[in-house]
Amino acid sequence: MGTGPFDIDTSGIEFFYHPRSIAIVGASTKSAKPGGRPVMALRKRGYAGKVYPINPSYEEVEGYKCYPSLLDVPGDVDMAIISLPAESVLDVLQQCAAKDVKVVVIFSAGFSEVGAEGRELQERVRELARANNIRILGPNCLGLINSANSVIASFAFIADLEPVTPGTVAFVSQSGAFGAMMYAQATEAGVGFSSFTSVGNEAEAEFSDFVGYLLDTPETQVIGGYLEGAKDGDKLRSVAEKALRMQKPILILKVGRTGAGARAASSHTGSLAGDDQIYDAFFRQMGIVRIEALGDLTAFAILHRSGREYRGRRVAILGGSGGQGVLLADRCERLGLSVPEITGATREKLEQYLPDFASARNPIDLTAQGGRDTSTWGKCLRALVDDPGIDVVLAQAFFREEVGMRVAEELVEICQSTGKPVVLMTHLRDDSEFVSRCIALVENAGIPILSDGLQAAEAVAKLCWYHEKARQVGDGESLPARILPGEGVDALIHSPDRLSEFQCKRILRCYGIPVTSEGLATSEEMAVEQARKLGYPVALKIQSGEILHKTEAGGISLDLGADDDVRAAYREVLANSKRFSPDAAVQGVLVQEMLKDGVEVIIGTTRDPVFGHVIMFGLGGIFVEALRDVSFRIAPVTRRDAEEMIREIKGYRVLQGMRGKPPADVDVIVDAILRVSQLVTDYADEIEELDINPLVVFSEGAKAVDALVTRRRE
Amino acid sequence: MGTGPFDIDTSGIEFFYHPRSIAIVGASTKSAKPGGRPVMALRKRGYAGKVYPINPSYEEVEGYKCYPSLLDVPGDVDMAIISLPAESVLDVLQQCAAKDVKVVVIFSAGFSEVGAEGRELQERVRELARANNIRILGPNCLGLINSANSVIASFAFIADLEPVTPGTVAFVSQSGAFGAMMYAQATEAGVGFSSFTSVGNEAEAEFSDFVGYLLDTPETQVIGGYLEGAKDGDKLRSVAEKALRMQKPILILKVGRTGAGARAASSHTGSLAGDDQIYDAFFRQMGIVRIEALGDLTAFAILHRSGREYRGRRVAILGGSGGQGVLLADRCERLGLSVPEITGATREKLEQYLPDFASARNPIDLTAQGGRDTSTWGKCLRALVDDPGIDVVLAQAFFREEVGMRVAEELVEICQSTGKPVVLMTHLRDDSEFVSRCIALVENAGIPILSDGLQAAEAVAKLCWYHEKARQVGDGESLPARILPGEGVDALIHSPDRLSEFQCKRILRCYGIPVTSEGLATSEEMAVEQARKLGYPVALKIQSGEILHKTEAGGISLDLGADDDVRAAYREVLANSKRFSPDAAVQGVLVQEMLKDGVEVIIGTTRDPVFGHVIMFGLGGIFVEALRDVSFRIAPVTRRDAEEMIREIKGYRVLQGMRGKPPADVDVIVDAILRVSQLVTDYADEIEELDINPLVVFSEGAKAVDALVTRRRE
Repeated sequence: MGTGPFDIDTSGIEFFYHPRSIAIVGASTKSAKPGGRPVMALRKRGYAGKVYPINPSYEEVEGYKCYPSLLDVPGDVDMAIISLPAESVLDVLQQCAAKDVKVVVIFSAGFSEVGAEGRELQERVRELARANNIRILGPNCLGLINSANSVIASFAFIADLEPVTPGTVAFVSQSGAFGAMMYAQATEAGVGFSSFTSVGNEAEAEFSDFVGYLLDTPETQVIGGYLEGAKDGDKLRSVAEKALRMQKPILILKVGRTGAGARAASSHTGSLAGDDQIYDAFFRQMGIVRIEALGDLTAFAILHRSGREYRGRRVAILGGSGGQGVLLADRCERLGLSVPEITGATREKLEQYLPDFASARNPIDLTAQGGRDTSTWGKCLRALVDDPGIDVVLAQAFFREEVGMRVAEELVEICQSTGKPVVLMTHLRDDSEFVSRCIALVENAGIPILSDGLQAAEAVAKLCWYHEKARQVGDGESLPARILPGEGVDALIHSPDRLSEFQCKRILRCYGIPVTSEGLATSEEMAVEQARKLGYPVALKIQSGEILHKTEAGGISLDLGADDDVRAAYREVLANSKRFSPDAAVQGVLVQEMLKDGVEVIIGTTRDPVFGHVIMFGLGGIFVEALRDVSFRIAPVTRRDAEEMIREIKGYRVLQGMRGKPPADVDVIVDAILRVSQLVTDYADEIEELDINPLVVFSEGAKAVDALVTRRRE
Repeated sequence: MGTGPFDIDTSGIEFFYHPRSIAIVGASTKSAKPGGRPVMALRKRGYAGKVYPINPSYEEVEGYKCYPSLLDVPGDVDMAIISLPAESVLDVLQQCAAKDVKVVVIFSAGFSEVGAEGRELQERVRELARANNIRILGPNCLGLINSANSVIASFAFIADLEPVTPGTVAFVSQSGAFGAMMYAQATEAGVGFSSFTSVGNEAEAEFSDFVGYLLDTPETQVIGGYLEGAKDGDKLRSVAEKALRMQKPILILKVGRTGAGARAASSHTGSLAGDDQIYDAFFRQMGIVRIEALGDLTAFAILHRSGREYRGRRVAILGGSGGQGVLLADRCERLGLSVPEITGATREKLEQYLPDFASARNPIDLTAQGGRDTSTWGKCLRALVDDPGIDVVLAQAFFREEVGMRVAEELVEICQSTGKPVVLMTHLRDDSEFVSRCIALVENAGIPILSDGLQAAEAVAKLCWYHEKARQVGDGESLPARILPGEGVDALIHSPDRLSEFQCKRILRCYGIPVTSEGLATSEEMAVEQARKLGYPVALKIQSGEILHKTEAGGISLDLGADDDVRAAYREVLANSKRFSPDAAVQGVLVQEMLKDGVEVIIGTTRDPVFGHVIMFGLGGIFVEALRDVSFRIAPVTRRDAEEMIREIKGYRVLQGMRGKPPADVDVIVDAILRVSQLVTDYADEIEELDINPLVVFSEGAKAVDALVTRRRE
């Protein structure tokens, strides 16, 4: 079985996709029934292994000999499909164990989705499977399909569809019905699925296990997924890392309606970390392409199978209609692509080819006249493909009777002479035999065709992003640096009482995060002494693990310029705090240097039940509170992740220096994020939440002014 | 002709859509040619009026007698189509004038789109038309089609398409080719166009004129438009107001790539007002539905033609697949719809109808079992329709052989028993004759059907928004209140020198906008006197129309607590300003009260070449500069517009009171926006830009602390 808690457990999974024999327990002679459809489909599609229908009522199903029970089957059984009511499942599983069945697909509903009793039944299924080295798909699932060898262990309607070959997309879904729709839609769009897996309740093997296995199959080039929520974030992370290394894109449609407010938390970070934002951050971090609709996966797959690398974001648009070109250019720019004006030699060429009134800029508008002359189209396309300032060409063409074949041939020739991606946009719905021939010619040459320009732009943007991510793998930047913490962290982290600001900052200092110069005072005179040592002016802050909101408690006094001020403030701060929280254990008063002006930022962490420690970055104060303008990543983060977190916030401009101020020291923020990441990774089990709020950032350097570390079960 | 500069000039436009006779100048016997296609289409579709092909080379075209010149035509000619090279157009127009032709459609290219010479030619076309009361469509256009009476004055390929009846969408397009694609796509989706108008270069009659006319035609229920840029913002505004009053929605696909940075401006407002943001604000203000893609118009039209009012945003989703339901619910919520949990009696009913493990919440998941039992589907639908907590039902259904017809009949019956909108989502692509019959039954009952759930959600959101907008028409809130300005504004606005802060604030005060208490001093002693009158502390600010950035000039001194401080500051402020700008004419030093803390907001205006004065609102300082978090509306604004502007910014939360602060006085901001709106409307020709930055807003009241009014040509 698995090799470690964070590893992908793919042992035995291969039997789901390559069983030498399949038993269908609860087989039916009615092909529309769950127990009937797979038997019929296995027969019809010519599955080469052995098929054993199991049902005491029949002698034979679809020409296969039917057995009264699994134990009556003469040969070995690799896969058993259970299509019986929930209450019979455990018995059949016992028989599977006795027969040394490798994998079991459980169609039956009535498990964790129906409440406490079902959950208990499901837990017993899991235990039984684990004890007997059986891998389980389901229960409450539509099963799976492996197109290449006609393993149809599913009762979804898609079992009846003719597969499109070659199948290069493996689809894994937490919703059976939705997954089946996606499969059907892709099939209609001419995109072949190598496999379809409906994971159901994931009693034992889960989403990530299947994805992890499928990545290793040579036919799978793209993974599509429908996800409501991962069971194990670490596993999904491992799978995503593996996929990125293998350059096999994972595309996920993630749904889930838990809003940001749902999480109960005492820290800023916790209260701002919504489920959807965390998934979004995770996907961005791990190179998983998030999709929004059925068509996104097929459009991506169509572009991806051309095998071209998207090396840059500069797009040229070659089209017949000015209006559509402009619309497409707008969309491209909104998606983060650029549609640069064509200049230099290419511009001169285009102006020579195009009629006076046509636009030789970008989008390139052929106008009705220009569009009618085939050679113009080809010449323009070649000029754009040859332009080193262009990375991708979106070309629109129609195949008219007279000239269509020449257009198609020229397109193929030009595309074969370059490594640049070219995407053809054309109406695919035209039924004429002539147009179909033109399209077949282009398609067989491996050139991607889409009918919807906006969808093409979306897919191009996704591929550009994905290839950027994939290129970063293995470069030095992406590895988190190992930081050696100073001594004493252990003792602090395990100290019995709630941690005070002073203690929290000592922990930060041990991890090399700069904090304000300061000292703890337990008497007026000690406070004065500390103040003199630090140099005036100073601030005084009450220190108690039980007083979280020092300002509210009147526990802070700022900008004290002389010994007497410090003495008075010391008394006042103590008195206020006593009034505010009479029973709080006070450790003393912190005497702290006053800082010059800088930009206030916040770095925080919170624990997510799925992904563990999540790191947040934002600008301090009102930016975080009013605008929720923050970014997230899952710990541990790389230097590049940290840089992206900082650039991602809308208020990034503030850090670049505004109103004549010098830019803030972004490097020191990156460094602080990396150190926080390591701290919460090293003490993953101890720390619940952490807030550095604010970290004041100067044009050089930064200092943490306040910090809070909450431990688990506090 | 027109009745005023801001009025829609529809006189004569009716002849484009209802000509009794059409002459095609440059007629061709080849149906693929621009001069051939309309003749053929008029014949084929049985246009009832007279058709006169004009071409000296032919005796006859498509069975119509052909004349050598327009002047040879025996009868009256209402419409002439010119399909000749640009250089012949003026001659033909002269003939049109002689023949008293009412309207002329000019296909010919070679006008303003090709440069200076073409622009001049176009200007002559316009003058000739105006002088002879001829209305012009084009030049450089694809012409127009009126479906009801088969007026095909177009050479676009769509001239050959069979129209879908009834046509209720009138489409007006600044891009011919794109408009034609939209027409074709809508036709394919079963949405009928009442007319199609390609406006080309708009030499004379423009986009808004055609829309204005079409609104009055009874067959037109929805207007669709493709817009690159309006020629006259006031006209478009008049048309939009008329449409909203008539409850005929206008949907516009607006493209255009001018970024926010393109505008040169000296004020904040000017530098933040990008073209696209202004159009966006205009559309929102005027109830124009902005669409993003071809399919948005057809989906909207399909929902709209059911005639149901969308009274609220609470959506119930009834579907077969849990996954798709969740996806749809996510999308609905992102679109500003709500998908509330079903409770009370309805919930009890649903739980009774649905199998144990089905979700009776919302989305309502029938699961495979529930979906199979027809009566369940119908019962659930009825329960949802009857629930007063639900405004719209999105219902998914499939028409299976056994039960499909009963599902369809039940759906029709339920829908006819309610006024609530119900949208059916189902696969339309199924070719079986049975499914087609089911769909026809539902469609004939006026129930909207869409195959794409996400598109249905988008269309529902758009209709909800549109109906909210339409309901506001005529309610008192929507009328701007007339403010009587105090005396002296005229003199100030027309004062010879650049306006100082003191003068700008006097103008504001005349319009009832609260400003800081202050007085102008021209000597140290006057400053002290003013300060005593105001009460300490005070601020001093240099006053000169030539020093725009007082802080930079060292021309501001804050928080002065005593007479001597004021004297010293007076000297310093003057000396600094002299150093900064030795030649600036200084009017004196402003002595101003210091304000207590409040929320700083900015209200500004800038002139847009199309729409005139545009008003901006945002939070002050870094919010505007770093985040560009501002909202716009076109002046004059209504109270509701002002309220929407304030609520629209992302930082709205800051105004609601944060960190224990009381909420800011939003009413006083609304009032200030209305007063600014009237000021720039009253002095539309004088004022170029205006910035109140900041207006400090308290929990009660507000005061403008600084203001700048720039006049035109300054």
